[in-house]
Amino acid sequence: MTDQPTAALAYAREHRTAFLEALEEIVSIPSVSTDSAAGAQMRRAADWLVEKLKSLGMEKTQVMATAGHPAVYAEMLKAGPDRPTALIYGHYDVQPAEPLELWRTPPFQPAIQGDNLYGRGASDMKGQMIAVLAALEALIRSSALQVNLKFLLEGEEEIGSTNLGAFIEQHKELLACDFALNPDAGMLGPDIPTITYGLRGLAYFEVRLTGCEQDLHSGLYGGVVHNPAQVLSELIASMHDEQGRVTLPGFYDSVRPLSEKERRELSRLPNDEQYYLKATGVSQLWGEAGYSPAERVGARPTLEVNGLLSGFTGEGSKTVLPSKAMAKISMRLVPDQDPNQVRQQLKAYLDAKVPKTMQYELLMLSSGFPSITNLDIPPVQALRQALAKVWGKEPVYRREGGSISVVTDMQNILGIESVLTGFTLPDDNLHAPNEKLHLPTFYKGVDAMIWFFHLLGEQK
Amino acid sequence: MTDQPTAALAYAREHRTAFLEALEEIVSIPSVSTDSAAGAQMRRAADWLVEKLKSLGMEKTQVMATAGHPAVYAEMLKAGPDRPTALIYGHYDVQPAEPLELWRTPPFQPAIQGDNLYGRGASDMKGQMIAVLAALEALIRSSALQVNLKFLLEGEEEIGSTNLGAFIEQHKELLACDFALNPDAGMLGPDIPTITYGLRGLAYFEVRLTGCEQDLHSGLYGGVVHNPAQVLSELIASMHDEQGRVTLPGFYDSVRPLSEKERRELSRLPNDEQYYLKATGVSQLWGEAGYSPAERVGARPTLEVNGLLSGFTGEGSKTVLPSKAMAKISMRLVPDQDPNQVRQQLKAYLDAKVPKTMQYELLMLSSGFPSITNLDIPPVQALRQALAKVWGKEPVYRREGGSISVVTDMQNILGIESVLTGFTLPDDNLHAPNEKLHLPTFYKGVDAMIWFFHLLGEQK
Repeated sequence: MTDQPTAALAYAREHRTAFLEALEEIVSIPSVSTDSAAGAQMRRAADWLVEKLKSLGMEKTQVMATAGHPAVYAEMLKAGPDRPTALIYGHYDVQPAEPLELWRTPPFQPAIQGDNLYGRGASDMKGQMIAVLAALEALIRSSALQVNLKFLLEGEEEIGSTNLGAFIEQHKELLACDFALNPDAGMLGPDIPTITYGLRGLAYFEVRLTGCEQDLHSGLYGGVVHNPAQVLSELIASMHDEQGRVTLPGFYDSVRPLSEKERRELSRLPNDEQYYLKATGVSQLWGEAGYSPAERVGARPTLEVNGLLSGFTGEGSKTVLPSKAMAKISMRLVPDQDPNQVRQQLKAYLDAKVPKTMQYELLMLSSGFPSITNLDIPPVQALRQALAKVWGKEPVYRREGGSISVVTDMQNILGIESVLTGFTLPDDNLHAPNEKLHLPTFYKGVDAMIWFFHLLGEQK
Repeated sequence: MTDQPTAALAYAREHRTAFLEALEEIVSIPSVSTDSAAGAQMRRAADWLVEKLKSLGMEKTQVMATAGHPAVYAEMLKAGPDRPTALIYGHYDVQPAEPLELWRTPPFQPAIQGDNLYGRGASDMKGQMIAVLAALEALIRSSALQVNLKFLLEGEEEIGSTNLGAFIEQHKELLACDFALNPDAGMLGPDIPTITYGLRGLAYFEVRLTGCEQDLHSGLYGGVVHNPAQVLSELIASMHDEQGRVTLPGFYDSVRPLSEKERRELSRLPNDEQYYLKATGVSQLWGEAGYSPAERVGARPTLEVNGLLSGFTGEGSKTVLPSKAMAKISMRLVPDQDPNQVRQQLKAYLDAKVPKTMQYELLMLSSGFPSITNLDIPPVQALRQALAKVWGKEPVYRREGGSISVVTDMQNILGIESVLTGFTLPDDNLHAPNEKLHLPTFYKGVDAMIWFFHLLGEQK
């Protein structure tokens, strides 16, 4: 064994076209997990991964049932019991592509334009999964893999990984390992290799208000029947105070305060105000008073309205007094908030504020705990060195605003830490129209993963 | 000439099936004026009316172009210049049928169940038009018509009669008459014949907010980018104060105060709190403090949210920070409010309140002035007597919450008063799913219209 994965890096360089074709194949499968009619497409994506893993020589490769969309398992334990075992996490489901009219190319017909591959899931996270699989292919084909592998690829990340905790609990023995590699995080920029050590949790709700049993004529009843769209607006308006703080009772009670040390570290990240202005194109930022943008996104909880619907929304002017109004409202959580407690807080808020003229219904659609990874473990060190080798500079450490509940589940059930990285960029339009993958960064990501497994195999 | 329209009443009784078939024919035409693709259906409805009017022996019967959907004109001036000329107003367009899933029968396949005919437009106002045409057919076939008639049947009432003012102006000579009969108002109950003497005006807007140029990931940007759904909710929430009063600057400045006499008259109407609770099925009313329900609906201006749309509204949980948020917001106006002034008031409100993080767009989709009819004119007296003959009791006089801008246009351009009545009931689901017409009331309406024209012809 050499101290450089030379053969694997050469293999990767020679097979870029094949890696790209594999990615295009899986991006073209519309595996939208929110769509309850998409069962067949979910299965197609899982089957595609099974074939791919088999072609790499993985064992026990199989589609495994969960209470929801199935998971894919595979393993390769040839390195032996004295070598570390990595559990590679991924998800093959994607966000819905709507609004379709804003896509410049069809979301499930991957299209290369310049340096980018466009398509729903190109970044999040089919591209990330393919980067890891490509790196492993390069290592396996050049007989340079010195670690044991297990795979857990789920189909419900975009709907909150609802059934994954139970699945991990049920298959605890099978999934036993030393750590998890989770490449579902991203980078702060193409030249900023990034390790994510904190993730926000999520509590996602649908609030439904009903006034009258059916829509009414706004001329005949406007002024005597309470309007649920108005009431919903009032409820949402009062969820933030003038400082941009969330007003749900007790919402900040279990939020871990930022230490001065952590604030200093976060202040060194490049994602300052200018960064966010540039990344989003807005003219002015917004948020909780007293915290920097990086703090607000990574280390402070937030509340967002994800959707609103009431009454007549078509062309023209229908003079209707709506019967119902609906909002999708979600909170991003930080340690040590608990999504179930947030549900109670929202319920207490609604119980106190919804007027007697309305009925309300509160549905929790998705939830996940926040998490923080220990930076001292060997796989984090291997990842640090791997990123430094490929980019020629030390990575930054950040707390990310997104939510990956599986990290908490693995910590709680399997007792393992997750090593979080990824090769998506801030302008990749995750969860938005025209999602894309920056191909030069993708190829660097393949190299970084080759280095990561190589360095991991060399660790004593 | 007798003092009873005996023959015409007998004719009407004998031809009920034919009247009903005619109504079913026109209700089955989906003449939805808000739908810009419905041009052919609008024309079908207009052509149907032309055929109907020709079959009654009307002259100059024709479809006439406006800047929007066409109008239908016809006349019959055989009674001679010493007899009054009535301009019969109607509209052949209907509201959109959405939400379709709430209809128990298809909206454009008229269905009789018990005493009711179900279908979009059955009441508002194809049923009302057919009632008048049926009454005239009965009078004409029994050679008992002693007044001159003109018809103006438009296709844009449900979109604010935007082009009707210009049309009336252009055809001022053709439309010259003594008064207008407008049967687009309704009754307070099947046993409460009703004359409407006040109508609210309308100012209908679409407010569009744009934050970021496209939808963002709520985890990556929640807490730094301002959310237009949240801002829109705040804007709407502040449009009413805690007394249920509208907060737009200057909104009440030109509102004519209710006199003590008028308050006493309105307090005698049967539409009290119990009436509205029963009509709508809600458990509690809402509205401006200090005014009764009848006052709030008839004599006070209101502001309603007619529709809300932002972000992800499908099944499941998409964690999106929306780019845009839209509200349809309309105000019902009372004398002497002016919809163009209200537009300025809303604009002033938005200019003051929309934060710098957002762009806004304000579209006025529809507008109409409020109106009050003089109760002393002869046609109102003829109508009062006609309703009393058929129902065996004096009608009530009310100010209605709805808006009919053509009444103001006719007053301003043709210098005539409108006599407003109608045979729709409060539970007819106007503008809502399962719109219906109560057939026993419809047949009484035909008789009342026979009496009305008969009494009008007898007036000196």
